[in-house]
Amino acid sequence: MPALRLALAQLNPTVGDLAGNAALVQEWSHRAAAAGAGLVAFPELALTGYPVEDLVFRESFVSTSRAALARLATDLAGEGLAGLPVIVGYLDADGPALASAEAARTAGPRNALAVLHGGRVVARYYKHHLPNYGVFDEDRYFVAGDTLTVVRVGGVDVALTICEDIWQAGGPFAAARAAGVGLVVNINGSPYELDKDDVRLPLVAGRAVETGAHVAYVNLVGGQDELVFDGDSMIVGPDGELLARAPQFVEHLLVHDLDLPAATAPAPDAAAAGMRLQRVALPVVQPAMPGPPATGGIAARLAPEAEVWQALVLGLRDYVHKNRFGSVVLGLSGGIDSSVVAAIAADAVGAGNVVGVSMPSRHSSAHSRDDAIDLAKRIGLDYRTEPIQPMVDAFLANLSLSGLAVENLQARVRGVVLMALSNQEGHLPLTTGNKSELAVGYTTLYGDSVGGFNPLKDVPKTMVWRIARWRNQLAVERGQIPPIPENAITKPPSAELRPGQRDTDSLPPYEELDAILAGYVDGDLGRDGLVEAGHDPDTVDRVLRMVDAAEYKRRQSAPGTKISIKAFGRDRRLPITNRFR
Amino acid sequence: MPALRLALAQLNPTVGDLAGNAALVQEWSHRAAAAGAGLVAFPELALTGYPVEDLVFRESFVSTSRAALARLATDLAGEGLAGLPVIVGYLDADGPALASAEAARTAGPRNALAVLHGGRVVARYYKHHLPNYGVFDEDRYFVAGDTLTVVRVGGVDVALTICEDIWQAGGPFAAARAAGVGLVVNINGSPYELDKDDVRLPLVAGRAVETGAHVAYVNLVGGQDELVFDGDSMIVGPDGELLARAPQFVEHLLVHDLDLPAATAPAPDAAAAGMRLQRVALPVVQPAMPGPPATGGIAARLAPEAEVWQALVLGLRDYVHKNRFGSVVLGLSGGIDSSVVAAIAADAVGAGNVVGVSMPSRHSSAHSRDDAIDLAKRIGLDYRTEPIQPMVDAFLANLSLSGLAVENLQARVRGVVLMALSNQEGHLPLTTGNKSELAVGYTTLYGDSVGGFNPLKDVPKTMVWRIARWRNQLAVERGQIPPIPENAITKPPSAELRPGQRDTDSLPPYEELDAILAGYVDGDLGRDGLVEAGHDPDTVDRVLRMVDAAEYKRRQSAPGTKISIKAFGRDRRLPITNRFR
Repeated sequence: MPALRLALAQLNPTVGDLAGNAALVQEWSHRAAAAGAGLVAFPELALTGYPVEDLVFRESFVSTSRAALARLATDLAGEGLAGLPVIVGYLDADGPALASAEAARTAGPRNALAVLHGGRVVARYYKHHLPNYGVFDEDRYFVAGDTLTVVRVGGVDVALTICEDIWQAGGPFAAARAAGVGLVVNINGSPYELDKDDVRLPLVAGRAVETGAHVAYVNLVGGQDELVFDGDSMIVGPDGELLARAPQFVEHLLVHDLDLPAATAPAPDAAAAGMRLQRVALPVVQPAMPGPPATGGIAARLAPEAEVWQALVLGLRDYVHKNRFGSVVLGLSGGIDSSVVAAIAADAVGAGNVVGVSMPSRHSSAHSRDDAIDLAKRIGLDYRTEPIQPMVDAFLANLSLSGLAVENLQARVRGVVLMALSNQEGHLPLTTGNKSELAVGYTTLYGDSVGGFNPLKDVPKTMVWRIARWRNQLAVERGQIPPIPENAITKPPSAELRPGQRDTDSLPPYEELDAILAGYVDGDLGRDGLVEAGHDPDTVDRVLRMVDAAEYKRRQSAPGTKISIKAFGRDRRLPITNRFR
Repeated sequence: MPALRLALAQLNPTVGDLAGNAALVQEWSHRAAAAGAGLVAFPELALTGYPVEDLVFRESFVSTSRAALARLATDLAGEGLAGLPVIVGYLDADGPALASAEAARTAGPRNALAVLHGGRVVARYYKHHLPNYGVFDEDRYFVAGDTLTVVRVGGVDVALTICEDIWQAGGPFAAARAAGVGLVVNINGSPYELDKDDVRLPLVAGRAVETGAHVAYVNLVGGQDELVFDGDSMIVGPDGELLARAPQFVEHLLVHDLDLPAATAPAPDAAAAGMRLQRVALPVVQPAMPGPPATGGIAARLAPEAEVWQALVLGLRDYVHKNRFGSVVLGLSGGIDSSVVAAIAADAVGAGNVVGVSMPSRHSSAHSRDDAIDLAKRIGLDYRTEPIQPMVDAFLANLSLSGLAVENLQARVRGVVLMALSNQEGHLPLTTGNKSELAVGYTTLYGDSVGGFNPLKDVPKTMVWRIARWRNQLAVERGQIPPIPENAITKPPSAELRPGQRDTDSLPPYEELDAILAGYVDGDLGRDGLVEAGHDPDTVDRVLRMVDAAEYKRRQSAPGTKISIKAFGRDRRLPITNRFR
C-alpha cells in the first residue's frame, strides 16, 4: 500500500482579503511541506473567505479570485513548493461577465476547488450539492457541478468534494465509490452549532464506510459576521474509524500518515452515479517522508459550555479585528448579561481593550453598582461611571412622559452615552441582550440594544448562567480570579427601569421561557404542539404573542454569533407583518 | 368558439390572516358571479398572503392553510357560488409533518393553487419554476411541481400556472402548448419595481404567442413589509394583443369576455415538455352571460414619478394598517426628505394621523424652521415643536465630546424624542433617510435612522426631488395646495449638525453620486467598470469605500418599500466583514 502524508490546514481567512488569504495559504503550505506532507488541503473558499454572499455577483470579485488562484500557483512553485499538491477552495465562474444577478445565473458562478501543482492549476472541481436552507443561500449564488474530479497523487486515487457534498448520499461520494478511490478529500465552510461536532463524526464515518474509502474533512476556523467556524477537521478510515481530529476554534495543521490502496488502471467509468468523471494524474513527486511517522492525534471534545464560550470569544474577536477595531465599549449594569459579555470581551481582545461604563439612574440599586465595580476589578477592564439622571431629567422636563415611555427613555439615554463614547474614542460598542430577551422583545430598541455586535444574541438566558459558572470554574482551576461576581449570577434578573422591577414581572421564569422558545423558535412548533409538549397554554399564548410582536425589533438588532440550530437573523426569516397566531 | 367571461381578482390580502383573506376571496367571488363571470382567478398564495417566508416551516401554518381552503370551498358553495370555478393560491405540503426545516425539505411544502367548484377542490397545481434570486428564496421553501394541470371549463381547456412559471421558457407553458389549451391562467405575487410594468407586457405577450393561447395574468396588490405589489393584471390574446389591463396599486376586478377555441378530445399527451399532465373536466355550468359584453378596458400607464409615489403610499399605508397602527410620527427638519415623507404619509393614512415634530437645535437655520411650519400648514398635519438644545446640553455637560460625536449626539437626541412620543402616544415612528444617504452611510445610527418604517429607503435623492415636484404639480392640476414648500425642494441639502454644513462637504453632487450608486449597488459594477463608464476615479474610490463601510448601518436600518431593481435588504446580501475593495 502506498503511504501518503496528508496535511489538513484548518485556517482562518478573511472575507474579501484575497491577498492576505493567499499569503496564509502560502505560509501553511510551507508548514505542510516542512512536515513532509505529500498533499495539503485548505477549506472551502479559503482564498476568498466564506461566505462571500452577493460579492459573487460582482464580476471584479470573480476575476480577482481567479487571478489570485493563478498567482498563488505560480508563487508556490517559485517558493520551492512546485512538488506539493495543494487543494484550495476559490470562487470561479463559467463566463467572464457577471454584470447582474440575472447574468450571473447564466454565467454560472462556481463554488470551486483547484489542485495546484508544478506552478499550475492541474485540476478543478465544482461543488455539486448546494445548500439552500438555514443560513445558506447557495442556489442563489452557484451553479452545481456535474463532474467528479479524481486526481492520482503518489499512486493513490483521490476524489475531491466540497462541504454539502458529504451531507447528501448521492452524487460525488457515490461516484467516488464507483470510481474506486482510496481517499475522498472534503473541504468545508461548516459553521459552528452547539453539539454539531457530535453530528459531524458519525456523518463522516458513515460516508467513509459507504464509500469504502478514507475521508479527510477539513474545515475553516474563525468568525465571519454572525457565523463562527469551529474547525473540527478530521480523518476517518474506510471502516469508519476516527484516525485524527483537530481541536475546535483554533488554527491547526493536522498532519497524518495514511496507508492507502494503490490506484489500479481505472475501469471505463466515464460516468458514475449520475456524475461525469474526470481523472487527472499528477507526476509522482511524493517526498521521502522525513523522520518518524506523523500522527495527527485526536483532540479531546469540549464540554458544551466550553464550546459555546470559545465560539463566542472567537466570533467576537474576529468581528472586532477583521473590521479593524482595537477595542470595545459596553454598559455594565451589574447584571449577568453585561458581566458575561465583559468577560467574553476580555478573553477576546484583552481586558485592557475593554471599556466598561456604569450608567446608574435613580432606579439603579446599590448592589448593581457594586457588582459592576467588582466585575471591573476582577477583569481589570477600563471602568467608567456616567450617571444618566441629569440627561434623563432634561428629557422629562421638556417632554410629558409616563410609564413605559419613561422606562425606555432611561435605556435610550444610556444608548446615546455609549454611542457618544464610541464616536469619541473609536471603540466598537457591544450590546448584551440574550436570545431569550430578543425573542420576547424584552429590550428597548435604540436603548440597551445599541451596538455593533452582540455576543449573546443567540445565547438563551439559562445558557448565559451556565457559561458564567463554567468560566468562573475555569478560572478557579487555573488559579485565577473568577471574572464574574457570584452575586451577578445568583441575584434575580432586573432591568432596573422602575422601582423594584423584576424580569419575572413581565416574563415567565427563564427555565420555562427558554423551553418554550426552544420549541417555538428553534423547533418551529406551533401553539398546539407546545401545549402537547406539556407547557401551560396561557403561558404559551403569551410567549408566542410576544415573540411574534417583537419581529420588528429583531430586524434592527445587531449581529451576533450563531451557536444554536436556529439563530435570529438569516437563519430564521419571518415577516414583520403577520397576523398568524 | 365558446365564449368565457373571465374575472381576474386583483386583491390585497394580509400575510397570516387566513380567515380575513378567505373572506376577501368570498366577497370578490360574489362580485365576479354578479358580473356573470364563468371563471375567477385570485393571485398567488392569496389565502395565506405572500410571501410567508419561514412560516412555511410551521406545520400549524400549513395545516391552517389547507383547512382554510377546504372551508372556503364549502362556504362558496353554501353561498350559492357552487357553479363558479374559483382559482386560488394557497400553501400545501405533501406530508403532514413539517416539524423542522430539515423535515420540511422532505415533507415537500408546495406553492399551490386549487380550483374550487361545487363545494370541493376539483384540481390542484404546484408551482414548477421556483425563483431563488433577488428578494426570492423559494428553493428554501418549496418543492417544485412536475405536473401541469389542465381543467376543462365551459368547453375550453385552461392550463394553470403560478408566477415564475411564466418567466421561464420551458416547463408549464411549453407543456400547455403541447396540450393544446385555449387559455393559460398565471397567478402572481410579483413585486413592484420601477418600470416593471414595461417588462411584464412583452413577457406575457411573448409567452402567449409562443404558447398559441390566451394568457390571463393576475397579480396581488398591496404592501408586505419591504415589498409592494402593484397589480397590473392583464389578459393577452394568442397573437400577443393586449385585451385588458387593470390599473396599478388598487384593488380591481378585471372582467373580460374571451372567445376561446373549443377543447377537442385530448391527444395522448400523458407527458409534455418534460412535465406530466393531469386533465380535469368540470361539469358545464357556464352561466348565461347577462347583459352587454364585458370588456375589462386597458388602464393607462403611469408616469415613473406617479408609479413611485403610489408605490410608496401603498407600501406605507399597508405597513401601518396591517400592523394595526393608526398614526405615524416623524421629525420635520424643513428639508426635502422629511417633507416628502410627510406628504406620502398624509396621502397614505390621512394628514390628521400624521404627527410632525420640529426638533430645532442651535444649528437649525431659521429657514428650516419656517419650511417645516410651512409644510405642516400645507398638509394640515399635527405639528409640534420640541427644541433639543436642553437635552443636548445635558449630555455635553456630562460627557467630553467633540467633532462628529457632537453632530451624532444631536441626531440621537432627536431619535430619543421621537421614540418617546411614539411610546407615549402609540404612533409608528417613520425615518426618512433616502437610498443615497443609506448607501454611503450619511446618517446617524440610532439618530435620524430611528423608526419602524422608512418610505424613502429605496428612493435615490435625485428621485426624491423628482417625486416632490411631481406631487406638487399633481396638486396644482387638482386645484389643491402643493404639499411640499418650494424652498424645501430648491435649497441645498444640509444635515444642519454644525454651522454652515452642506451635504456636498462630505458627498459628491447627488446627480453624480446617484449615477455611481446605480452602477455599484443596482448594477454590481466594480471600480474599473465604473471608471470605464466615465466616472471620476477618485470619486468612485471614495464612494465605494463609503458604501462598503456603511454595511453595518444598513443591517440595522428600518424596513422600507422596494421600488428599484435592487433594494437594500434581502435583495442585496453583503457581508459586513469584507476587505474587498
